[in-house]
Amino acid sequence: MKSHKIPEATIIRLSVYSRYLKQLEINNITTISSVDIARGVNGSSAQVRKDLAYFGEFGMRGVGYNVKELNSHIMKILGLNTNWNVVIVGAGNLGSALSQYKGFQERGFRVLGMFDNDPEKIGRRIGEIEVYPISQIKEFVEINTVRICVIAVPAHYAQEVVAGVVDAGVKAILNFAPRALSVPEHVEIRNVDLAVNMEILTFNMCLNK
Amino acid sequence: MKSHKIPEATIIRLSVYSRYLKQLEINNITTISSVDIARGVNGSSAQVRKDLAYFGEFGMRGVGYNVKELNSHIMKILGLNTNWNVVIVGAGNLGSALSQYKGFQERGFRVLGMFDNDPEKIGRRIGEIEVYPISQIKEFVEINTVRICVIAVPAHYAQEVVAGVVDAGVKAILNFAPRALSVPEHVEIRNVDLAVNMEILTFNMCLNK
Repeated sequence: MKSHKIPEATIIRLSVYSRYLKQLEINNITTISSVDIARGVNGSSAQVRKDLAYFGEFGMRGVGYNVKELNSHIMKILGLNTNWNVVIVGAGNLGSALSQYKGFQERGFRVLGMFDNDPEKIGRRIGEIEVYPISQIKEFVEINTVRICVIAVPAHYAQEVVAGVVDAGVKAILNFAPRALSVPEHVEIRNVDLAVNMEILTFNMCLNK
Repeated sequence: MKSHKIPEATIIRLSVYSRYLKQLEINNITTISSVDIARGVNGSSAQVRKDLAYFGEFGMRGVGYNVKELNSHIMKILGLNTNWNVVIVGAGNLGSALSQYKGFQERGFRVLGMFDNDPEKIGRRIGEIEVYPISQIKEFVEINTVRICVIAVPAHYAQEVVAGVVDAGVKAILNFAPRALSVPEHVEIRNVDLAVNMEILTFNMCLNK
């Protein structure tokens, strides 16, 4: 993984601020203070100001931030001022669930297809999304300018999948398989471990006992 | 959410260290330095030392940490020195995938049952896990001392589910429904937004362009 100057925790918070700002936009709220953003996301206003300061000066002292401008700026920072084409490899329960995940669509991630090597699954449709044979993924990625691949296959297939999609032009991989994968330097990868969330819960439960 | 003195980012890293230490244990490695832990998890050794320092003194200068002891200590901090009984509400694709998720089992989270209100799903088995009618959840939670509930239902059902399981004795909720849920003060809740992971990828891709 390459290291960047902006802490990852800041990126995660920007993503949270952005969702909150979107909600405000929908409710026709036009300006907001860092204190109110902090309140809306269970954070501190000092943290909000610090996070935003990484990316230059926003807002006006005593007036606050313009909700729409700030959100559009954050979306741009996050690379979300454009849609992203996505494929999912693995059409099991997890892959199928991810293909229908509204949180992706809302943020501009378009799942164009799923891929599997199981003849029983190939040709099926999950919602609008068709399951294609894995042998077609390279061509599909090239033709559709897919840059993001979600991996939801068993651990022992995952590395093999990486090789194929990187070769086809994928630049980022979201890996749900419980295995560390090697990718070339120019490819971003992120491993999702759902158990971490459980462990934050148990930590907090034990603190409060 | 209650605020605790330990930053959440530290808890997340402890969880990552612990997985890495487990791997070392399996490979019969008995001692390790903070530098090598940092290398193994793509972090900094100063960060490793700082994270561990929240919980007292571990390790010996010049010798490093005893792998097994350190991991067992971290597991205890995270509340993982015991198994936790879990139920999943919502037996759709996501709930079904989560019921089979090996990352939960490995860390001592035992999914005992799934619950749904769809007659088509009730009575089915996904792997070893049976789908029960939602009307039975209270009794099930009480009888089996379930403390953690995973919510994988559509957004508009989620709050209703919370009320029922909290009443039955659940102390922590992992929420995959894209909606903010209110819980009583004594209940921990964590919302999982899978799109955040995508956004870290797009942020990094845009930085590297």
